[in-house]
This record gives sequence, structure tokens and C-alpha cells, in this order.
Amino acid sequence: MICLGLVALQHRGQESAGIVTSLGKSSKNFSVHKGMGMISNIFNDEAIRKLKGNLGIGHTRYSTAAASEVVNCQPFVVHTAHGALAIAHNGELVNCESLRREVLERGVGLSTHSDSELIAQSLCCAPEDVSEHDGPNWPARIRHFMTLAPLSYSLVVMHKDKIYAVRDSYGNRPLCLGKIVAYDAGHANIQDQVAEGWVVSSESCGFLSIGARYVREVEPGEIIELSRNGYRTVDIVERPDYKRMAFCIFEYVYFARSDSMFEGQMVYSARLQCGRQLARESPLDADLVSSVPESGTAAAHGYARESGLPFAEVLCKNRYVGRTFIQPSNHLRQLGVAKKFGALAQNVEGKRIVLIDDSIVRGNTIGPIIKLLRDAGATEVHIRIASPPLQYPCYMGINIPTREELIANKLNAGQLANHVGADSLAYLSVEGLVTAVQMNKSHVNPVKSGYCTACLTGEYPGGLPEELSW
Amino acid sequence: MICLGLVALQHRGQESAGIVTSLGKSSKNFSVHKGMGMISNIFNDEAIRKLKGNLGIGHTRYSTAAASEVVNCQPFVVHTAHGALAIAHNGELVNCESLRREVLERGVGLSTHSDSELIAQSLCCAPEDVSEHDGPNWPARIRHFMTLAPLSYSLVVMHKDKIYAVRDSYGNRPLCLGKIVAYDAGHANIQDQVAEGWVVSSESCGFLSIGARYVREVEPGEIIELSRNGYRTVDIVERPDYKRMAFCIFEYVYFARSDSMFEGQMVYSARLQCGRQLARESPLDADLVSSVPESGTAAAHGYARESGLPFAEVLCKNRYVGRTFIQPSNHLRQLGVAKKFGALAQNVEGKRIVLIDDSIVRGNTIGPIIKLLRDAGATEVHIRIASPPLQYPCYMGINIPTREELIANKLNAGQLANHVGADSLAYLSVEGLVTAVQMNKSHVNPVKSGYCTACLTGEYPGGLPEELSW
Amino acid sequence: MICLGLVALQHRGQESAGIVTSLGKSSKNFSVHKGMGMISNIFNDEAIRKLKGNLGIGHTRYSTAAASEVVNCQPFVVHTAHGALAIAHNGELVNCESLRREVLERGVGLSTHSDSELIAQSLCCAPEDVSEHDGPNWPARIRHFMTLAPLSYSLVVMHKDKIYAVRDSYGNRPLCLGKIVAYDAGHANIQDQVAEGWVVSSESCGFLSIGARYVREVEPGEIIELSRNGYRTVDIVERPDYKRMAFCIFEYVYFARSDSMFEGQMVYSARLQCGRQLARESPLDADLVSSVPESGTAAAHGYARESGLPFAEVLCKNRYVGRTFIQPSNHLRQLGVAKKFGALAQNVEGKRIVLIDDSIVRGNTIGPIIKLLRDAGATEVHIRIASPPLQYPCYMGINIPTREELIANKLNAGQLANHVGADSLAYLSVEGLVTAVQMNKSHVNPVKSGYCTACLTGEYPGGLPEELSW
Amino acid sequence: MICLGLVALQHRGQESAGIVTSLGKSSKNFSVHKGMGMISNIFNDEAIRKLKGNLGIGHTRYSTAAASEVVNCQPFVVHTAHGALAIAHNGELVNCESLRREVLERGVGLSTHSDSELIAQSLCCAPEDVSEHDGPNWPARIRHFMTLAPLSYSLVVMHKDKIYAVRDSYGNRPLCLGKIVAYDAGHANIQDQVAEGWVVSSESCGFLSIGARYVREVEPGEIIELSRNGYRTVDIVERPDYKRMAFCIFEYVYFARSDSMFEGQMVYSARLQCGRQLARESPLDADLVSSVPESGTAAAHGYARESGLPFAEVLCKNRYVGRTFIQPSNHLRQLGVAKKFGALAQNVEGKRIVLIDDSIVRGNTIGPIIKLLRDAGATEVHIRIASPPLQYPCYMGINIPTREELIANKLNAGQLANHVGADSLAYLSVEGLVTAVQMNKSHVNPVKSGYCTACLTGEYPGGLPEELSW
Repeated sequence: MICLGLVALQHRGQESAGIVTSLGKSSKNFSVHKGMGMISNIFNDEAIRKLKGNLGIGHTRYSTAAASEVVNCQPFVVHTAHGALAIAHNGELVNCESLRREVLERGVGLSTHSDSELIAQSLCCAPEDVSEHDGPNWPARIRHFMTLAPLSYSLVVMHKDKIYAVRDSYGNRPLCLGKIVAYDAGHANIQDQVAEGWVVSSESCGFLSIGARYVREVEPGEIIELSRNGYRTVDIVERPDYKRMAFCIFEYVYFARSDSMFEGQMVYSARLQCGRQLARESPLDADLVSSVPESGTAAAHGYARESGLPFAEVLCKNRYVGRTFIQPSNHLRQLGVAKKFGALAQNVEGKRIVLIDDSIVRGNTIGPIIKLLRDAGATEVHIRIASPPLQYPCYMGINIPTREELIANKLNAGQLANHVGADSLAYLSVEGLVTAVQMNKSHVNPVKSGYCTACLTGEYPGGLPEELSW
Repeated sequence: MICLGLVALQHRGQESAGIVTSLGKSSKNFSVHKGMGMISNIFNDEAIRKLKGNLGIGHTRYSTAAASEVVNCQPFVVHTAHGALAIAHNGELVNCESLRREVLERGVGLSTHSDSELIAQSLCCAPEDVSEHDGPNWPARIRHFMTLAPLSYSLVVMHKDKIYAVRDSYGNRPLCLGKIVAYDAGHANIQDQVAEGWVVSSESCGFLSIGARYVREVEPGEIIELSRNGYRTVDIVERPDYKRMAFCIFEYVYFARSDSMFEGQMVYSARLQCGRQLARESPLDADLVSSVPESGTAAAHGYARESGLPFAEVLCKNRYVGRTFIQPSNHLRQLGVAKKFGALAQNVEGKRIVLIDDSIVRGNTIGPIIKLLRDAGATEVHIRIASPPLQYPCYMGINIPTREELIANKLNAGQLANHVGADSLAYLSVEGLVTAVQMNKSHVNPVKSGYCTACLTGEYPGGLPEELSW
Repeated sequence: MICLGLVALQHRGQESAGIVTSLGKSSKNFSVHKGMGMISNIFNDEAIRKLKGNLGIGHTRYSTAAASEVVNCQPFVVHTAHGALAIAHNGELVNCESLRREVLERGVGLSTHSDSELIAQSLCCAPEDVSEHDGPNWPARIRHFMTLAPLSYSLVVMHKDKIYAVRDSYGNRPLCLGKIVAYDAGHANIQDQVAEGWVVSSESCGFLSIGARYVREVEPGEIIELSRNGYRTVDIVERPDYKRMAFCIFEYVYFARSDSMFEGQMVYSARLQCGRQLARESPLDADLVSSVPESGTAAAHGYARESGLPFAEVLCKNRYVGRTFIQPSNHLRQLGVAKKFGALAQNVEGKRIVLIDDSIVRGNTIGPIIKLLRDAGATEVHIRIASPPLQYPCYMGINIPTREELIANKLNAGQLANHVGADSLAYLSVEGLVTAVQMNKSHVNPVKSGYCTACLTGEYPGGLPEELSW
Repeated sequence: MICLGLVALQHRGQESAGIVTSLGKSSKNFSVHKGMGMISNIFNDEAIRKLKGNLGIGHTRYSTAAASEVVNCQPFVVHTAHGALAIAHNGELVNCESLRREVLERGVGLSTHSDSELIAQSLCCAPEDVSEHDGPNWPARIRHFMTLAPLSYSLVVMHKDKIYAVRDSYGNRPLCLGKIVAYDAGHANIQDQVAEGWVVSSESCGFLSIGARYVREVEPGEIIELSRNGYRTVDIVERPDYKRMAFCIFEYVYFARSDSMFEGQMVYSARLQCGRQLARESPLDADLVSSVPESGTAAAHGYARESGLPFAEVLCKNRYVGRTFIQPSNHLRQLGVAKKFGALAQNVEGKRIVLIDDSIVRGNTIGPIIKLLRDAGATEVHIRIASPPLQYPCYMGINIPTREELIANKLNAGQLANHVGADSLAYLSVEGLVTAVQMNKSHVNPVKSGYCTACLTGEYPGGLPEELSW
């Protein structure tokens, strides 16, 4: 079940993955399986069969902080005085350097540069103000850690027969709760009876594939305990400077899978609203609206509906493109993008096209695509980007290139249009984006609601530690 | 250039691939590189650098006749009394058994079961009525072979500085001719000067990525010679029972990439026409039209335009699904399809949906998809298939399951609707399909035009050899 | 140079290997390369080029305590408050369980079950009685660790520009010191100038291959500091219950390479003496003395010289035997050993043979070898083992099977002769072994000299911790 | 059983291997398994289980003629008009170029450059003077081939339920016949009953491991038929210029395994005689005789016995040496051999050593070994080579370097001694070698007996075809 769930989260990380399961109350050790690469390569039937127990945590990773090595695979398992502890998290500790220093000065060696080990070692030692005559008080230890590390993480911690699910008090990274629906196969044999259960996940898109349904977001600062007795909120750690949550708006723009639910709305719907908003902000007289497959399609449909222009496909994707070969001449290199896409020439000939993409990062692909469409006969190609220009690095878990590599730091919209050979190019405004993603949402306390737009505005939630300021 | 072209043809075969190049006139030996798997795994920079010469042939294979072994990779190279000969073909020799017998009885051993070796050994020996005082007369040898083997093949034969491109006299498999556009980089260095050249390919979709443009189809029975002097038709082998060509209609329905051109029309356009025709044949009162990504989308747009119903996306594809794991219970197994697709719940809730797919083969996936949509709140799900029921095996190069596995041989449309849980299900008619694919085409002699619909009707072009009749 | 040295130590472990190098004084981080398998597979030119610096440590491992996983590869590197620390050791901590408990209760999580991590975490924290105003006092920390962990280890610890070489106070595992001879290539270029340097190694057999020569053993309890300034003894930690050292006698019997020097004598010479002693203890009237290649040859030569019987080869080894295949019948299975050895029939026919082996563990191979010799015509086959019966497990770094698997715990010499089909079988006595290995030695304080014979006698040096007693 | 036999022949080729088995009389197809690399990597249990039938042939290959590719693996299987035919051979066709031309001109394409395919295609076509009304007459076809191809080959040909074993009429390559001894396990189950059977093999060393015993050599020119009815000689093809056989003397010197029998004598005994003869030809006053392990040991024992000098080991081999790493300085490179061997210093110090090796090819290793021994204290090192200088290439199946690479073509014995730093160096004479290998032999017609010494004398049996003369 965990493995199926990870497959649905594969888009969040393709570098390594792992699962740790527990046999429950008396479990001194866990079953562990981790590896580099894609889930389908790491987990075969034998590996899955060896993962024993009724509860467990899994992780799929793409590297932000530490290097891509097997030692950095999550979940991270440490042996503590109270038995094994397993930890998996999404995000990046903004103040990891000061946390490291603290742990090292306590006389603890760290064997990796990963945040996971740092979190683990932080939780290993009971803080002075926590008394533990009846065994380890994990909620208190977690609360202590949360006060030291304000953001950014969604975190699961497993010990014996309990899993703690934690979201930082900014709510920066997503985390939601699902219910595994009890299922009685009737006359079928025992292994088909599925008991009721609970699950947390970065995104809800995996719930369906394991027979679970979306219940709600984990609240910012909330510590949930999952056990055989169901789930309960054991604490909500609020931040002193409390204003509003700072949920990563880039999840809506690009990162999350379109069928996931955040704040009660489908990501696809938010993207469609971005397209509508874009049509209102930057309208055009053209023959058709289209998108670069497979990104930007929801926004393109939104743009088409709002503008009244027809949607039509103009590019066909080669499903089998692997890595790039040598291309002996510049000429062939310029044709490189044609390896990835084919133009649907008869849809394009003589047409004025609005081409929607979800975002522009380095700006390398859009130029060749425009050339491809013009070669196929398009008379005009206008680019509309369903998000604002990306200008600032992220220190909270999204792997955005350095400032120098971000094209928006080198060229404004007009210059970029020129550079890529577009007839025009426009971005969605920051305000437009925030408005669009709020359009359909529900289930969320509107007072608390708020977004981290640091990569677009440079306003980092809580400010940046000195070591990171640029 | 050949390698880039093969990448564009990767959808035609993912089992093995190879390239053979020639150093030209005095070339006793070829450069050869072949391997199992995908092109991007077989060809790295070093392998490409070792392929010397100014002309060459490449192939990407999926197995029909012979087993999946490296020895069966194409192009097939044989050393003859006149130097090396390389052969690559698409298709399957319908009368291969009698051809084998003939070659073996001539005292030649065959080391594989592949059609390629059979063609090669057939061409190695000059037929009695061919006199060759000035060296091998390849056009005459090829014509002789074509009279013995009526179908099905598109074939390239390379010897020293010449390539012969051949299409069987039924025109069953596709083959088209392209022109490599001369390109002068001006001030750039010499390797950027691209001379004019010629290329043949099963599909035109690769032309763009190598700087070539579509010229025309190779005619049924035509033997084209490509050399440093350009191309010329050296022969057209007509069949005695001449009526019309028998081009594989399944290329339009499913096999070809949508941006390829056949008979002067884009495959995408033909598929869109199929959707329009389907809307005329099987109209519905519904809220939206959609497709199973990424097949059926062109037809869905056609259905939407003809019917006036809106097109909307209802499914989101997981790009990262690999092979299947063990799923301990039936319950999870039933949820399996949810690993591959996510429902866009808010687009589906309370909606009556027309779901278009391009074809139904075994009928295994459509049921779970319907369930997924109903679970997400769809009130009605109607299936429309943009091709007729698939009922007969293909002996001409398309790997269609046995009759027993084809769901259309077990259930009619009504029974199948019931079986997969659809509110209704309808196929496109054979006449409708033939009409649709002819709608936009051009450049083709209308007298000759005709299709092989054997997999739909059981009418095999030229009849079946006894050994294959069922 | 380290890599060449490890190749010479490959016989001590083939499971994994690693090298860590340091850039010296200001080195916050090390260069690390580790991997599973043989050294020649782990270290290619690129890997070696990336290892920067003028000092370093290397390790080659076979698993005793922790599982065979990349995470357990040595050297083990931890990041401490004072920068990176690297540790490699040979041996096994007899009281690792109590050491683990202590570390865990200090609030440190352990991420592996390896002794290396345990040693590292022990050294990370300055003991209370060690004051460190000028930075970490490694000798004091190491001394503290040595008082807590009496045996068994030879250990190297690297920090910035220093390496500490440590041998436990029993001298249980070997460790010797060598001097890298300065070498001036005269007119040759600069990289051929080799400066004087120092090296420590478990065995001296690697010295020659790196241009070093054997200097002396590291003394029991000695802490040596190696740096740019040469080497110096910074401490000698004696044990309270001091009697004599307890050097592993199994190194002489089986484990070490025959050209290594221990206690001033060549291992080969000690083995030859064992053969001589064996001839004195268990003489025979026979036609020739031989050995199972390639073990037992030194002892066989010793036996031959002492007895006056000729030495002759009787078996030829197949250098290419890999793993075992299925053998459909018992008959073929019995012939299995013949896959590994061939009998030199004409040397054997009609002969009475004394066959020497160095030790008997499970006793599986000797029976089939005897049968092979009898089939080839030997009239008598007498087995002489150049060591006493192996009866007890080792907890100090040698991977000896469990008591149940040791054949000497099931059958006495007479029964074993019967079981394997020998005409007679005799072991060397424990006293004989101890006498033999002392015969040629020099350079060692005779008062201190002594051996661990636990695997032969069950007398464990220092007694066994409760958790290990059986 | 075949697989076990191949393991014993692994020293004859480590590049690729294969097995083909037949289901017998009605067998249209064979079971085939081939692969690159060592037998233990190619054949796992599953592969062996798939090889069905009661007769079969196997091969292990090192490349002489054709390149190292899977397509050149033997046995080679072709499909003929009479069903499948499998061929495996040892040796090299001296006149392969003219044979190729003949086959190609018959209109047959050849897909490899291997001799195996050439032999196969030669046998596929019945010669004009062979009438075959009752099916293929393989003995006649083989005889025809043998008259066209005088040497060099030992060959097995399998068709349906028969295997033909063939040795060229010079008897150049070895081939011997063994009998599988019937074995009745009594009460054991049926699969332990082993029926009587027959086997041919290049060397007899594999017989013991499959429960067979050496019967006799296959005679030069003999064609043996093996079937369910036992074995029978169906033909002996004599050569017109008949004088004596020309058995490869290098098999005795170096190539064969020492426990194999040729001409009724053990290879080990022949090598021991070479050592004795060498002692007679080139005696010395010295302290001990030794060898480079593991070559030259038999000869060293012979030299010791004849001279009365003691034999002692002076070098210890590192069993784990893999490929070579970068060695940054010349100094370390010179120490390279010390990676492979360790000197047994205490055996060497102050000693005058006679070091025996079986042969010298490029002469690269002996110099560093001498240096190693001198560094370890040897006062004199004299080299004695138990074979004459190697001066000419072999075109008959032994992969000897080109003339330029053979050190004996550049330096005479005295110069070579100087070059490698020996106190003296002597070879065995050609006459001495021939005398030595004849000393113990039996079972062979003395009239016919004779050797190919081409690599030593340049006298090629039958002369060389023009294309090969140098």
C-alpha cells in the first residue's frame, strides 16, 4: 500500500526512495528497504514481501540539500536508547547550519549532510525541560525541535506502534490526511478484508490508488499521532510572530500533480483559473489557444474559455526521448527540440497562435518550439505564461536554479519575447496568481490562509538566516 | 542524423535498434552498431562516432516473427561475393515458410529465424535469368525477390555507395521520401555546411528533426535508388492481380505518430475526422467529451467539434508508472488502474461524460477507468471507440493478439458496455473509418488508393497462404 | 599508494573497501571513496584522482559484526564540532553492547550496527576528565575509549593533518609500522621524487609494493601519531590485569599472507615450523608428502624436510572455478570436488601419501579430495593438519562458524579419519603450535609475548562479557 | 554434465561459451545457450534446465580469428534443409580465405567472420560427387570438407541423434575419447542411475569431474560417430603428403592443464621431464631451485631432482590482483609487480637462486621479479626457461603475439639476461624439448608421432598459404 502511494508521488522526486515498516509495540527494529532511482526499480516483489508490519512510512526524494548518494536516502533510521526511530520529511531546514552546530557541540558526530539525520539526532536527546519517567515523550521532543526549526518541513516520525505527522507552523510544505476505507469482500478470503485506517501524504493524488479518501489538510504547526486507535491531534505549535500561513504557491503553479487537492480545491482547477486570469490580464486577437504538452494544458483551457478562442493541439510529444546524443553541427543542434516535439503542421498553417506554458525557468526550450511552429506555417506565435517571473532561489525544498540561471533576472518580458522569437510574451501578475489560486478553495480558515511567494517576490517567510542572504 | 531519425521512429519498436553505415564506393565492410533496448541506451557518443561514412541505414524493431534476441536485430549484414550487404525492413513476409524452404534447398544454412536473413540470402544469389557481367545487378535481384514475396515489407538495401528503397507492390507498409535541405551557415565552420541529400523513412515525423522535408510516398512496387547523384526510380514492380493498393489502415488508427503524413494528410487530421464521423454515427446527449490520455485525444476533439459538446480533461496521467508490484488483495488489484491515472474529480462530479478511445484490444483498462470516473462522481459514462472492432490477427507486421484474446470476438458492443460498466458503448463502422481517413488526403492517385482492413474484416490482401489460414 | 597497499591486504576482506584522504591542517572535509566488492572494481583511475591530499587511510572489509551493506563500509567518516573525523579498524569490540548502550543513553542516535560508528561517536564527545581549551585532545579521547573497550582492535583515526594508529592493549589484532623510503629519480621529473614517509598496516606484505620497508610492530596499547613531522608514540595504554599480550594465533595458522612479518618472523617460516613440529608429533612411513593447493604448502615442505620424505605435487587446481551449478544426480554431486581439483594421476598411482592441510573447519572438502586421490590410484592417504582442532567461536574479528558447524566439535581425530575416508588423521597439538610459531621470532619482548588461542582452547583473553557466553 | 566438462576446459578460453543439446532422432531444433564471459556467469540453473536432450556439444572460446562478439560464440547453429546442425571446433582454418571465396561465390552470404560459420555453410551443401537419396550423408560431407581444409581443427558436428568428432589429418589440435562409466546407485532414485556413454574432449582433465575415464586419442584424420549405439570410426582421412602427425608442442609447454593426458602421458610428467632435460643442458651451482607461481613449478621440481639442488618457494602470489590503477610516478610503476607477488624474504636472503619459468613471451614480468628477489636479499638469480625461444606466429589456434612483440626476436639469451637483470639465462633446446615430451609417452603409434614446432622453428606443417606468409 505504501509502495502504491509512493508511485503516485513519484513526480515529487525521482532520485531515490525508501520504505520503513514497523511490527508494532514491541518493535526494536524496523524493516527497511531503500535505493537509488525510480520506485519501480527499487521495489520488486521480494523487497516488498520483506517489509513486515502494520504501519510504515515511505519517501521519494529529489536532492535539494545533500548530495545524491544512497546514504542520504530517506526514511532515515536511527537506533536510539528507546529502540529504532524512522524519519522522513519533505522540505529543507532554513536554519540547518545553526542546528548542526548545536548537535555537534553536544558531542554528536554527524555522518551525512542531510537534514534527515539532523532532525533524527535532534529528536534522540530529550530536551532539559522534558521529563520522561515513562519512556520517551515524542510529542514534547518534536515540539522542542519545531521551536528551534521554524521551517520548512512536513515530517513523519515513526517509533514502535506510532507515527507522528507534523507540518511546520508556516504550513509551507503540503501535508494532508486521508482515511483508508474499510472494505469487506464478503465471501472472499481473509486477505481481502481491509480494515479502516489512516494515512498522511504530501499530496492527495495517491489516496485513490490505495483505497483512501481525502479528509483534510494537516494544519500549520499541527502534530498528529497515528496509531491503531486512529488519529488524534496531540499538539499545535504556533509561531510567536503569527500572522498567516505561508503555503508554497509553486505547488499550485508547477510542482503538484493536477488531480491533488490543496485547501479543498483541485490543483487542476487552480491552474485553469490562472489561465482565465491570464486571459483577462493579457488578452489577444488570435486564431487558437494551445499549450506545450504536457504542461500548461489546464491553463490553456482556462485561457480559451475566458477568451472565447478555440483550443487546439499544435504539438505532438515523442514519448521515447531519452538523453541527448552528440550532434556534430550547430544546425542539427538547433533542430534538437524537434526530437522532443513534432508540429501538427496542418493545425498550425496560417494560424495566429497563443501558446500557454505554466512557467519559464531558464528559457531554453521555448525559443526552439516557437521556431518549430513558425517552420510549420504559424503566422504569429504569442507566449503567455501562467505564472509571474521566477526571480529568487528557494531555500525551502524546491530546487530552483541560481539567480544567474533564471532568465527573468536577465531579460524583461519584452526582451524575452525578442530573444525567443515570439510576437509577444506576457506573464501572470503576482496578484493575479494569488487571486486565481484562491478562487475555488474551501475547507480552509480564510484568516490563516496565505502563501509563500518568495521565488517570485524575494519575500521569504520569517526572513532569511544571515548565512543564506544574498 | 540517422540516430536522430530513429528516435522519432521509436514508437514503431522499442525492442532493439541498429545502424549500419558505409564508406562508399570502395567499401568492403560497413560500420555496424546494434543492441537490445531503447535507442538512447544503445547509442552513446562513442558508438555514434564509430559509425563512419556518408550513407547508412537504421532500424528500430519490435518483434513479430523471430524471437527477441540480439542476433535478430536489424539492419542485417551479410558478406557476399561482392562485399558487404545491409538490409532493414518493416513488415512480415506472409509466405516466409516457402521462401525458407527454397533457400535451404539451395544448400544455404540459415542461422536465424528472421525475415531479414531470409531476404539477405535471397538477394545473395543472382537468379538464373539475370546476367551480371559488370558486377551484381541489385535492381534485378530485388525485382526477382519481389515477385517471389508479394507482401508485406518496406525495405532498404545498402551496398557500397548505393541504397535501394523498396515498397511491396501492395503498398502495405508505409514508406516516404524526404529531402535534406542544404544549409549554409555562412561564416560558421565547415562542419555546419549541410549538403543537399535524400532520406526515406517509414514515417515523415522524423524529417523535421534532421532538417529534411516530406516529398512524397514511395509508390507501391517502386524501387528507388539513392546515391550521391540523388534519387531515381529504377523500377516499379506491379502485381499481376492488380487492383488497388492495400495500405494498412491501422497505421491511421493507432500505430503512426500523429504528426506524420500519409497520402498527403496528417495522421492527426485523419484521427480528428474519425472522431467527427463517430459523432455522426453515434451521437449522444451529454455534458462533456473527453479522452483517455494520451490516446484518443484527436478523435475526442473531432467528436466535440462535430457534436458541439465541450471538450474537457477528466483524467491525469502518472508519467512515472513502471512495472506492476504484487498487490496482496483483490481489492488493491482492482485499484491498480488508479496507479496509472488520477481522476480530475471537480471536472467530473455530476457530469455525463462521453469518453473516446482510439481502439479496444483486450479491453482490460477501460473498465477500471470507468469505475474511477464513477467513484469521482460521474453520473453517466459513455464509451465511443474511434475504430471498428478488432477481430482478426495480422500477418503483415502489426503485433495483434490472438483471436481468443481480442475482446471483440467474445462480446458485442452491448455486452461489452455491460462488462466494463459503461452506460453505452459504440464503435466506428468500417465504412465510416475508410471514409474518414480519405476525407483530407491528397497527392495520391485516387484510382490506386485502397486499404488493408484485414484485422477488422478478415479480408487479407492476396489471400492467406495455407500455412496461416485459421 | 594507499590503493596499492589495499590490494596487498585484499585477502583480509573482499566485501567492501574504501579510502579517505585529507588535505591537511585546514581540512574541514575529506575526500572519500567507498564501495562494495573488490578493490579493483571499486577504484578506477577517476576515483583515485579525486582523492586529494598527502595523508589518508584505507580499509578492506569482511563482515563480522554488521551486515554487508554500503553503509557499513569503512573508513567511517563523521562530521564533528572540530571538523571531519575518519576511522578504520580491524577487529571486533567484545563489549560493543555495553558501549552502544552508553552512547545511546547520552542521547546519540546510531544509524548503523557497525563498530566503526560506535568508535566514532565515542570519540566525538570529550570525556569529562579531559579539558580541551586548545581544541580536541585526540590522544586523551582515544585513551579514554581504550579503557572502556579492552579489545579487539587495531585502529587508525584521522583528523586534519594527523593520523593516530592504535593497537588494543592485548595486541590481539596485528599492526605494524613501515617507512616509505625516500627516492630521488635524479634527472626525472618532479613527480618521481618520493619524500620519506611513514605507514601503518595490518600486515607488512603490502610494504614492498609501495616502496616501504618493515620497521616494527605497533606495541600492545600503543598510540602512535603520524604527521608531516614523522611518527611518535604519544601514549601506551596498559591494561590493569596485565600479564602477557594475546596476539591472534590464527593469523599465523591461516589468515595472514605468507610473506608478511609478525614479531620479526615471516609467516611462511612459522607455517614451515608447524609442518616440522607436526612431523615430530605424528610421523609416518609413506612415499611422499603433499598439500592441498594452495593452502598447507609451507607446512608440507616443513613436514617433508623434517621427515626426510620427498615432497611431490598430487593435485592441480582449476583456476577458473566459479559458483556451483545444479547437479541433477547425487553421483555428479559427489564428483563436484573434481571440478575444483584434478589429480596428477601418474604422481599418485601406487603411492602412500601424507596430505597436509593448514586447518579443518567444516570438513567438507577433505573427503572428496581423498576419494579423488584413491580413484587416481593412491594406496594410502594420511591426513595431517598443521593446527589443532578448531572448536570455539571468535568474537575478536575472525569469522569462524558456529560451534555446531565446526566438525571438530562432532568428531574426534579417529572418527573424522573414518568419516572422510583417510587411513589416519592427526592434528598439531596446541603446545606444538605455540612452540612452532615462537621458534624463529625476534624483535619482540619475550616477557610480553603471548597468544590468543581462544578458538582452539576456549580461553578468551580477559574473559567473555556475559552477553556472549555460551 | 557438459557444463561441468566445460568448467574443466575453461583455461582453453575465457571469452565466451555455449552449449547446444538435441532431443534426438526427430529433433528439428536444438536447445541453445551461449554468452560472453566465464562459464559460471553464462550458465545458471535456469539456463541449464532449459537445455533438453540426451546428447549435446559445448564450447569455450578465446578469440583467434574473429572478433569478440556474441555472434561469434560457439557452438554455431544453422538451420539446413535437413533440420538444425550444430558445430564447435578448436583451431583455426589456415586456408580460410580461399574457403570463404568458394562459399560466397556459390551465392551464400556469410554473416560473421568466424571459421565456425564457414565450416557450417561448407557442410550445408552436398558436394557434387555425393549422392544422397536417403538423407544427408554427413561423413561424406565432412570428408569433402577435410580434403579442402587440411588444418587446423578438432571438430564436433551434431545433427539430430548423432555427433561426429573429427580431428584434422595432421592431428594438430588435441582431441581424446572418454567413456562415461555406468553407475547404479542401488536403492537410490532413478535420476542417480547413470547409463554408459561416450564423450570427446580437447583435454582429458574434465573426464574425472563427469564420471568418465580416458580411453584414447582420436587419431589424425579420424571421423568418429557417437550415438545411442556407442562410438564407431566411420572414416580416416589421410593426407596425400603423409609423413608424421604434427601435434602442437605448445600444448605440452604451456597451454594444456597439467593433469591432462596426451599420447598416454600426463602433461605434468612431460613438463617435469623438460625441467630434468634443462638441468642436463644448463646446470648451475646454486643454493635452491624455485619457480614463478603457478607456472614452471613442474619443471622446477624436475630441475631440482635432476640437479640435486633443493626446491624452495621464494614468491607468494596475491590471489586478488585485478586490473592496474594509475601509478603517478615511475617509481611506483616499477614496484608494480610487487602488487602481484610478494617475496618470501627469509627464504631468499643470501641465497643463489635458479628460477624456472615455462616460457618467455614478451619478457615483461621476469625483470621486476628478479628485482624483487634481489631487493629481498638474493645474491644471484639465474633464469632457466623450460622451452626454446618463441619466435614465430601461430596460424593454427594459439594466440601468439606478432613477431615484433616476441622478445626472443629482439634479444638473444645473453642480451636478455642483461636486459632483465639476471646473472644468467638459458632456454631449453628444441631437440631437448622434443626428447623430453617423448620420454614417458605410450599408446601412440611411434611411426606416426611428430610435433608442430612452428612457433619455435618457423617450419609450418604443410607450408603456409601465400596470404599468410610474412
